[in-house]
Formats: sequence, C-alpha cells, structure tokens
Amino acid sequence: MKSFDSAAAAQARARQDSLTKPPGSLGRLEDLAVFMAGWQGRARPRLDHAQALVFAGNHGVVAQGVNPFPAAVTGLMVRNFDAGGAAINQLCRVAGADLTAIPLDLDRPTADFTQGPAMTRPEVEEAMHIGANAVNPQADVLILGEMGIGNSTVAAALAASVWGGGAADWVGPGTGATGDILANKLRAVDAGLARHRPTTAAETLMAFGGREQAAICGAVMAARHQGIPVILDGFICTAAAAVLTRDDPDALVHCLIGHQSAEPGHRRLIACLDKQPVLSLDLRLGEGSGAAIALMILRAAVACHDGMATFAEAGIG
Amino acid sequence: MKSFDSAAAAQARARQDSLTKPPGSLGRLEDLAVFMAGWQGRARPRLDHAQALVFAGNHGVVAQGVNPFPAAVTGLMVRNFDAGGAAINQLCRVAGADLTAIPLDLDRPTADFTQGPAMTRPEVEEAMHIGANAVNPQADVLILGEMGIGNSTVAAALAASVWGGGAADWVGPGTGATGDILANKLRAVDAGLARHRPTTAAETLMAFGGREQAAICGAVMAARHQGIPVILDGFICTAAAAVLTRDDPDALVHCLIGHQSAEPGHRRLIACLDKQPVLSLDLRLGEGSGAAIALMILRAAVACHDGMATFAEAGIG
Repeated sequence: MKSFDSAAAAQARARQDSLTKPPGSLGRLEDLAVFMAGWQGRARPRLDHAQALVFAGNHGVVAQGVNPFPAAVTGLMVRNFDAGGAAINQLCRVAGADLTAIPLDLDRPTADFTQGPAMTRPEVEEAMHIGANAVNPQADVLILGEMGIGNSTVAAALAASVWGGGAADWVGPGTGATGDILANKLRAVDAGLARHRPTTAAETLMAFGGREQAAICGAVMAARHQGIPVILDGFICTAAAAVLTRDDPDALVHCLIGHQSAEPGHRRLIACLDKQPVLSLDLRLGEGSGAAIALMILRAAVACHDGMATFAEAGIG
Repeated sequence: MKSFDSAAAAQARARQDSLTKPPGSLGRLEDLAVFMAGWQGRARPRLDHAQALVFAGNHGVVAQGVNPFPAAVTGLMVRNFDAGGAAINQLCRVAGADLTAIPLDLDRPTADFTQGPAMTRPEVEEAMHIGANAVNPQADVLILGEMGIGNSTVAAALAASVWGGGAADWVGPGTGATGDILANKLRAVDAGLARHRPTTAAETLMAFGGREQAAICGAVMAARHQGIPVILDGFICTAAAAVLTRDDPDALVHCLIGHQSAEPGHRRLIACLDKQPVLSLDLRLGEGSGAAIALMILRAAVACHDGMATFAEAGIG
C-alpha cells in the first residue's frame, strides 16, 4: 500500500512559503497542493490525467415508494451519460476529466432492504471488484460519483447504520421527495435499521446495498492501495465510502469531499468524518458533479503551486 | 445603458427546468447561468472572452507604518505579473481569462489620508478613466483585481466611510499586519475617518484614495454601461467598487462577489451589499485571485446550461 509521503508534503509546504504571496494567503489552495504532493509523492504534484467514474445501480427499496422518479430513469440517465448530455459530461469536459459511466446490473435491482438483505456477499464482492478494477493506475486523481433512483434512501440507511441516529437524522429530499414520498422514505429507512444490525463494511453493504455503493467502496480501496487521491461527491457517494471506516478508521485519508451538498444529511456526515468540503454550491444532483467542480479548484491549486515564481526568482525581499 | 434582460433570464430559467436533472439540483450554478443570461441578453450565455484587469497603485498612508512590506513591492509585483510569475497569472491561465496588469503612477503615491485628502479630483477622474477605458467591450465577463502595498488600510477606510463603524470594524491583517503594524493601521483609519466626511463616490475616493480603487470604480461603471457582468475579488476590490453605491444604490447589480476572503471585513462588506459570494476558500491574496477562480465556477454553470440535454431530448419523462 502506498502511503502519504510526508517528505514530499513538507517540500511542497516549503515551496508554498517561498512563492510570491504573503504566506498562507492562498488559503485552501495551499492545503490542497500539499495534500496532492503527499499522496502523489512529488513536491510538485501534477494533474495530467484525471479520471471520473460514475457507477449506476437500481434498488429494490423503490418498491416502498421512496422516490418521485421511476427506476427506469437510472438506465435512461446512463444512456444520457453515454450520449454526453448529462451535467457530469459538461463538468468533466470543463474540468478536464476522463469520464466513464458504469452501469451495474440495472435490470437486476438489489432486494428491498425493508424485507431482507439487499445483497448477497458474492454480489457485494463482485460490485467491489468492478469498482476496484475500473480505477486507472495512471490517474493523478480519481473523481467518484453515482446514479441510481432510490439511492439517497440507501445512503441514509448506510449513514445511520455507521454513525448512529435514525431516519429523521439522515433522510432528506434527495431528487425531490416531499409529502407521502418523504414519509415512505423515513419509514423505509427506520424499517431497515430495525431489521439489520451489520458491524463490518461488507455486512453493511449486504444489508442495505447497493451495487454502486459497493463499487465506490472498491474504487476508494483500490485508489488508497495505489496512492491515488480521490474526490468524493455528495451525500450518496460520501455515505457509500464512509462504510469503509467500519473496517479501517483511516480508509478515507486519501479522500477529499468535493463539495457540501444541499442534501441535509451531508453536513452531518462530513462532520462525522471530520473533513472540510472544498466547495459549497447548494448542489444536490450527484453524478460526481460536485467532485468534478472541485477538480477545477484542485487545478487552480496545482497551477499556482507549480507555476508561481518564488520571491528569490522575482527579486523580491 | 444596457440593462438586465429579464426575458432572456426567464428563457434561461425555463431551459434550466427542462434539463436532465431534478429541478434546482444544480443549485448556485443555475442562478449563475440565469444571471449571465440576463446581463448578456441571451438565453444561452457564452464565455468565449473573459477579461481580467488588475490595477496597481501606491499609497501615502504607508508612511504610518501600516504594512509589513515596503511600497517598492507594488512595482516588483507588477513586474511579476508581466513576467507571468504571480498567482493571478496561473489562475487566469487555468480559468481561461486574458490578463492585463495596469500600474497607475506607482512612483507618485497618493497623499497620506491621515494628513489630508489622498487625491485631487482630477487625479480621481484620470484613474477612473483609465479603468473605464481598459474594459474590452467584447468581453463576456470582466474580472477585477488589485495590487498595492497599504491598500487594505485604504479599503478599511473606504468601507467605514460608506457603511459606518470605525477602524475596529473593518481593519484586518491584510498582507500580514500584527502587533504594532496592526495598531498603526487601526490608528490611521480612525484618523482618516475623523478628518474626512465625504458623501459622494468621488469625494470618498479623493479622501482616502487610491488610484487602483478609482480605476476599479471606472471599470465597474463602464461594464455596467455596456452590460458586461463583473466578478469582483476580495475585500479591497469589493470595498473600492462599493464606493459607487454612494451615488447609485444599483451600481453593483451586474457584479458577482467571486469569493469571501479570509480578511474579516469582507464578510461584513458582503452582508452590507446583500450579496452571496460564489466561493469561500480562505484566500487573502487579492490580485483578482478569488474572482479568477470564480470564473471557473461560472464556466461550469455555463457549460451545463448550454451542453446538457433536455428531458425531451434524452427521452425521459
């Protein structure tokens, strides 16, 4: 496993302090440059190849009436990703990331977690492998996102299972649940929490699903193994990755939270993880959209770090 | 004077609601696309040509020992801008903006405002003209920034003069003032406020200076006249532009605040202007750095607005 290179990070910090600006005046950009330097193991990190992976899955819990959209929308949106018409396509283009959308058995939804386990152990393992194998070892940074009608219900159940609390603490509107749909969502999550008491990451994914969540876990683990820094997206993506902290409290040390979503549970989740999101733009779309925008901030950080003159070079001081 | 095109903005809002995403789920990006549509007068705004102007000036108030850096650094940083070595050069490159740095009589600092008026009326008018004339009428958006040793002291005086309060309400560390230097800064601002009681924008600039502040005002007015949306930078840039609200409460309707600076007075100033910054990255550099990064967010907004498929196009719903 490749670990954070403290020497490279220290060199990067020293370089930051030598650049033509008051020390610390680039704020978060300085921290991001140092973070990237440590994970890439080079004092001047690069962003030549940014990879974006969007995993898509379907969920049996939609039978509980938790989402205003039908499950068929998941597949239609994957087709939209492939045709270049979704938000994430445009954002990856402007941010300079190579996007791959990976549908996971869309015609075979996970089981309804209010009635039993969402997935078998082999199903979880298969999805994790798909996620892990999708990571390009040459990537300088990995952006993760998801699509799946019903998966903000799954995310609320995962977060409550890992961090405690009930449905009311973690359920939000998602794609736009109100009224009866929101009530169904709350009831489904509490029913799932009453039925399942998982303690490991794999058990948690088996209990609540889903395939895209397991794939995200697999990709996060593979990136950690290869020392590739990761940008997580919003509530659903973060809740999926956070499952890994059940097995290893350091599972997300190489991950940034790209943005703080408008989905209310995300703020709580970010606090549980003791992370600071890069951006806060009231997004609540998923697809990796906030993570892709955060990549632009990372590019700004790396560009300043690499391209600025030092005080000595500029003949100042 | 070109005004906000409500019809184009309404068309842009309708388009947002037709795109393949839950309505409103792109949050701030949707508002930014609509803002740009209204000011550009087209339902699909464009960002083919982004202009960045950084005005630099020197200030007599440095005689009061308000800054840890000598005034000569202003000229050295302009040379750094011209050589491509400053933060703003890297940020304009990654954000896709054409940068021009404009030094304003650096060898002729404004007078010390604790002793008398900083500038004569002709000096203010000349600097405003330079700022106005620098605006490219073909620009799709204008980014404004500044450089000038001592100018966070000027900004605090301008903000206090326009919005009330004393030095303690508006003075911050700037480039790194602590201890005696910070005490000098507080004393200088209160001395200036006691000496001058300007009521118009021009009088305010005459009282406290400086040339880069007047140039920013001229550029903001010219952009307003031509219907070019503006991205203001941090505390110093915003305080300069805010002087214009003395003459016209709507003077900044075409302006975004690119980011909320770590300089404490900026939060207060943004609240006075009833604006919401695009970003908050703990920057406190100036040069237009936060505004240039905000341009990247604007590019994300415009790219989604223009490139996404509608539900009808994607065959959804």
